[in-house]
Amino acid sequence: MKEARSRCPINLSLEIFGDRWTLLVLRDVVFGGARHFRELLGGAERISSNVLADRLAALVEHGLLTRAGDASHKQKVTYSLTERAVDLVPVLVQLSAWGVRHLPVADAYAARAEVLTAGGPPLWEAFMDELRETHLGTRRGQAPDGPTVTERLDAAYAASVADRTE
Amino acid sequence: MKEARSRCPINLSLEIFGDRWTLLVLRDVVFGGARHFRELLGGAERISSNVLADRLAALVEHGLLTRAGDASHKQKVTYSLTERAVDLVPVLVQLSAWGVRHLPVADAYAARAEVLTAGGPPLWEAFMDELRETHLGTRRGQAPDGPTVTERLDAAYAASVADRTE
Repeated sequence: MKEARSRCPINLSLEIFGDRWTLLVLRDVVFGGARHFRELLGGAERISSNVLADRLAALVEHGLLTRAGDASHKQKVTYSLTERAVDLVPVLVQLSAWGVRHLPVADAYAARAEVLTAGGPPLWEAFMDELRETHLGTRRGQAPDGPTVTERLDAAYAASVADRTE
Repeated sequence: MKEARSRCPINLSLEIFGDRWTLLVLRDVVFGGARHFRELLGGAERISSNVLADRLAALVEHGLLTRAGDASHKQKVTYSLTERAVDLVPVLVQLSAWGVRHLPVADAYAARAEVLTAGGPPLWEAFMDELRETHLGTRRGQAPDGPTVTERLDAAYAASVADRTE
């Protein structure tokens, strides 16, 4: 890794994901459940194959993703979030919430962000525990009642899409 | 403004500050009190004059900064945060907190981030009110007791620097 421009936390963070694509790749793993190259290639922003491969390699290098499977066959590799990446959820939620308040966000995306904003830190923690279970194999301490946070986010998204097509 | 790649809040946010410099410029206005071109040029990361001019123009275009003064003399222009920019404080704080937890942050920077993390949302709100007073001329409703958040952050920074030189 090349030398940092400064050791400010915001600068060091931007040296990892201060570009237009890296956080979108993480977004699709965190909120979209994408684990494979081809799924990540299917995001709304139409990332190119080269850029995606480059960003995945950087995320692995910086300890935000791990890869399992045959690295010489990129279609077969499965990506998992690390604890460091799961811990970015509050940043992603605050960034989404800011976007919903100030930018022309589409309804379907806003629906998910609003569930997370309304739930506050306890809901983010529950979501992070679900991610840890899925990606790190950590068993959750207590079985939650009712739908998971992931299911609630998906339901909010689906309901918003259904509203628009009615 | 050119067409957005998608209307996801994270994507729309990254279309504004998804680069290695824009959030650093905002950081220096928000946490460093910088209001003028020359002050912003003095940041730890040694931004170039051209890049700074470009990012300031983009921040004005996207409604995160306003400029007052003679635009043909960039040294004389004063920049102010907008409400939209003040509202980014929770994002900046969460990003800093993440950096402190996971990256090799310098002590002096960590000290400020730790004050903000420990204070939680009520402290962020108080800080945002101070920024609104400074940049938007909004009078705060109630006079706070004791030092301002800005003073507390500066004191934490100064104490940390003093520790290192003892």
